[in-house]
Amino acid sequence: MRSVQKDKIMSAKDAALLINDGDVIGASGFTMAGNPKLIPIEIANRAIAFHEKGEPFKIDLYTGASTGDEMDGALTRADAIGKRYPYQSHKGMREAINTGKIEFSDFHLSHIAGYVRSGFLKKPNVAIVDAVDVTKEGHIYLSTSGGSTASYLLMADKIIIELNSFFGEKMKGFHDIFIPAPPPVRERIPIYKVTDRIGLPYVSVDPDKIVAIVETNSPDGTRPLREPDETSNIIAGHVIEFLHHEHNRGRLPAGLPYQFGVGNVANAVLASMAKDPLTEPFNLYTEVIQDSVFDLIDNDKLLFASGTALTLSLEGQNRFKDEIDFYRDRILLRQQEISNHPEIIRRLGVVAMNTALEFDIFGNVNSTHVLGSMMMNGIGGSADFTRNAYIPIFMSPSTAKDGNISSIVPMVTHTDHSEHSTKIFVTEQGLADVRGMSPVNRARHIIERCAHPDYKDMLFDYLNYGLKHAPGVHTPHVLDKAFEMHIRLRDTGTMLKK
Amino acid sequence: MRSVQKDKIMSAKDAALLINDGDVIGASGFTMAGNPKLIPIEIANRAIAFHEKGEPFKIDLYTGASTGDEMDGALTRADAIGKRYPYQSHKGMREAINTGKIEFSDFHLSHIAGYVRSGFLKKPNVAIVDAVDVTKEGHIYLSTSGGSTASYLLMADKIIIELNSFFGEKMKGFHDIFIPAPPPVRERIPIYKVTDRIGLPYVSVDPDKIVAIVETNSPDGTRPLREPDETSNIIAGHVIEFLHHEHNRGRLPAGLPYQFGVGNVANAVLASMAKDPLTEPFNLYTEVIQDSVFDLIDNDKLLFASGTALTLSLEGQNRFKDEIDFYRDRILLRQQEISNHPEIIRRLGVVAMNTALEFDIFGNVNSTHVLGSMMMNGIGGSADFTRNAYIPIFMSPSTAKDGNISSIVPMVTHTDHSEHSTKIFVTEQGLADVRGMSPVNRARHIIERCAHPDYKDMLFDYLNYGLKHAPGVHTPHVLDKAFEMHIRLRDTGTMLKK
Repeated sequence: MRSVQKDKIMSAKDAALLINDGDVIGASGFTMAGNPKLIPIEIANRAIAFHEKGEPFKIDLYTGASTGDEMDGALTRADAIGKRYPYQSHKGMREAINTGKIEFSDFHLSHIAGYVRSGFLKKPNVAIVDAVDVTKEGHIYLSTSGGSTASYLLMADKIIIELNSFFGEKMKGFHDIFIPAPPPVRERIPIYKVTDRIGLPYVSVDPDKIVAIVETNSPDGTRPLREPDETSNIIAGHVIEFLHHEHNRGRLPAGLPYQFGVGNVANAVLASMAKDPLTEPFNLYTEVIQDSVFDLIDNDKLLFASGTALTLSLEGQNRFKDEIDFYRDRILLRQQEISNHPEIIRRLGVVAMNTALEFDIFGNVNSTHVLGSMMMNGIGGSADFTRNAYIPIFMSPSTAKDGNISSIVPMVTHTDHSEHSTKIFVTEQGLADVRGMSPVNRARHIIERCAHPDYKDMLFDYLNYGLKHAPGVHTPHVLDKAFEMHIRLRDTGTMLKK
Repeated sequence: MRSVQKDKIMSAKDAALLINDGDVIGASGFTMAGNPKLIPIEIANRAIAFHEKGEPFKIDLYTGASTGDEMDGALTRADAIGKRYPYQSHKGMREAINTGKIEFSDFHLSHIAGYVRSGFLKKPNVAIVDAVDVTKEGHIYLSTSGGSTASYLLMADKIIIELNSFFGEKMKGFHDIFIPAPPPVRERIPIYKVTDRIGLPYVSVDPDKIVAIVETNSPDGTRPLREPDETSNIIAGHVIEFLHHEHNRGRLPAGLPYQFGVGNVANAVLASMAKDPLTEPFNLYTEVIQDSVFDLIDNDKLLFASGTALTLSLEGQNRFKDEIDFYRDRILLRQQEISNHPEIIRRLGVVAMNTALEFDIFGNVNSTHVLGSMMMNGIGGSADFTRNAYIPIFMSPSTAKDGNISSIVPMVTHTDHSEHSTKIFVTEQGLADVRGMSPVNRARHIIERCAHPDYKDMLFDYLNYGLKHAPGVHTPHVLDKAFEMHIRLRDTGTMLKK
């Protein structure tokens, strides 16, 4: 028996009775990995029952990042969420956010744990956590994600554990739990290599705060990634060529670790690196570790992966489970405050690769908002890494929706990464290295190298019109024309002129 | 005799002969402090002579930040600058940038030295540096600014020194020179208190690289700040009230250091803190140290100031000189890579106060571009601090140009600090604390608290129109109306409806 708090074992339904209208829940879970799976569904049912009686029932939900349908989905369908921080990627929840039913605020993922501890956000009074073990001393061993779980456990008055035997006790030892002291007097974060462990393998809590333990045997409900498509493979080719080019010119020191955003393009780059004979074995200092690590390890390309979440397909989870002792020396999960910490990212010189929703000719990147107004998922860790990376790379297919949307636009409708922080842009058309360029030269370079042929003239026309008519030509924007392509898309369904 | 390289002493005119068309100059100088003063004028004269003969003569100029009229002014007037990094604030240079005569690219100030060392930017082949001493071993003692001078000296093939006796050898000991190793294997930046010294008091170079020494006795050509006006004093009052409020609620630990941007509003806050009986003595971990430190020290409010530039009025420079031994224990100048380093700013928990050019109702800040197109000065260190601060505060009068411009707008025309990084906004109308708010609630709060009464209805109308008509109401932007206020300003000279 793993748990020594037998008297606290109860059903998910009974545990959900401990949750009340107005509670602020801090939950485990990061990119569908390691979120509680049974209790949120029962909280949703409880909310529905309250609502049917005409009584209010809503909670605020803080997590690491996105969670599975059992949590973000079920609670959204039950109309049970008031505020939601700091990231999500669930279709139903996104719709609720964009119709004003959920108050969402997305944070740099490295920030939220500190904000909670500082009292900047309402304190989570309940923590609900997926764990592989809990001891009578109050040592909680987390499952497949670090997230901000340690800080939520620290702050909460009541703790509810989903004790998950899917990976079970074999999962112990994959986490490194470290919570920085409050300023002004605090130490460095003593990570000098991606492999460095600086904390404990468990979260230590007052055992009296644990009010319920719910037993389960549930894999993570992760969505499988698609096999890389041709566009993603071409993008990956440009990226790898660039990395070799930089290395050969002495501008990319050997041994820099990599960060990869989530998604199909990033996955394609990793898959291509696994196959590339010239790519030396490397380390990941990243946020989310995905199935692609297996191929990398099989091809002797990956030395070590440090992240905050192990987001694997069901097949990947089983593969991981079968060889869990092998992976224990190769994978480490940290709290997101540490996986995404500016101190470490800048110290190690991380090469950051993230996907852009759209970027503009002057080098600003939109990662979050469609037409400036509709939230996709959130900024996530993209700015934590981009802002402090040795070299940040943004990737995107040059078009979306069958060519009706150009990913390169005159002006982004929301800026998540400013021109001051970006350097390299890649589409299947090519790669633009705009380091040291003025905005106008950046624009010429980005249009020439990255834009789809269908949109090149349109983008050059905007630039040239601006060079003649803008109030200043440092960044020759003409405000009444800056969003013409977006407005056409909104009104006609395409950015192309008919 | 301070310099022991007597044979290299020459006139500024002769030193300028060592500069050629196409050279890349890395110069000392940060916010008008410690830039070379004689040689740039002679380079400008040399450029004019070349141009009169119909021959090309342009240099690229990298500095710490803005420099005085002797440098940015003279070289601009001579049409002698090709590329200019990473910041400027000279009227003539700004005009040249905005008419396309100078290729300017502004960087986060913490980044440029590293980019130069990494080979991301063309290497400066000549360094021109204002110094108070240079020894035969090649120890160069800098004057009133750290900037990125140490890295430029390291990279340059030729070094030219302006040996400035205005402060003279008494200035020795104010600098702490530390250059981080390249990644991936590098140590922490070992600053745990603002007073920590981690390097040497001089820059060490190969003495053979020094090709010229020009003697001078020149104070910095700093512009005096205005006395705080009523608006700035009201803003300062709101800020101080907020700080006490946060401290009393346990959300602002005692002893956090402060950063202040340059300008009249920041200066007013410092002046008010000097007079405020409830403000405990504090430290500055900042970029630019200005005259206001004297009042703070006289009022026993300032314990220690760490920065990268000592930007003082002429009166301030004389005051400093008279009591230089007293200030040696209270002021330390670092390289801007370190004064603005994310590792240190986050570790110490800096409270960051910067001025916004404009901010939007959803919490995005424009620090650089007028009407999206005209460069003001550059982003400077504002994002280095904002992004990693314990709590970032943006301040601005609610209107500019006699009320014809609202500093609060529906959508900023350029984003330097995104909604994800901002928290507190202050105008003379009030203070908006938007921590944890969704974009729509932020908008209500910012309009209510910060906007000028003349613009409140206009801003609420935009918000309410968006809530009805935007594609999504997470951030209810309507792209064809987002810049209406700016376009009216451009076309009629005012954002007000006639």
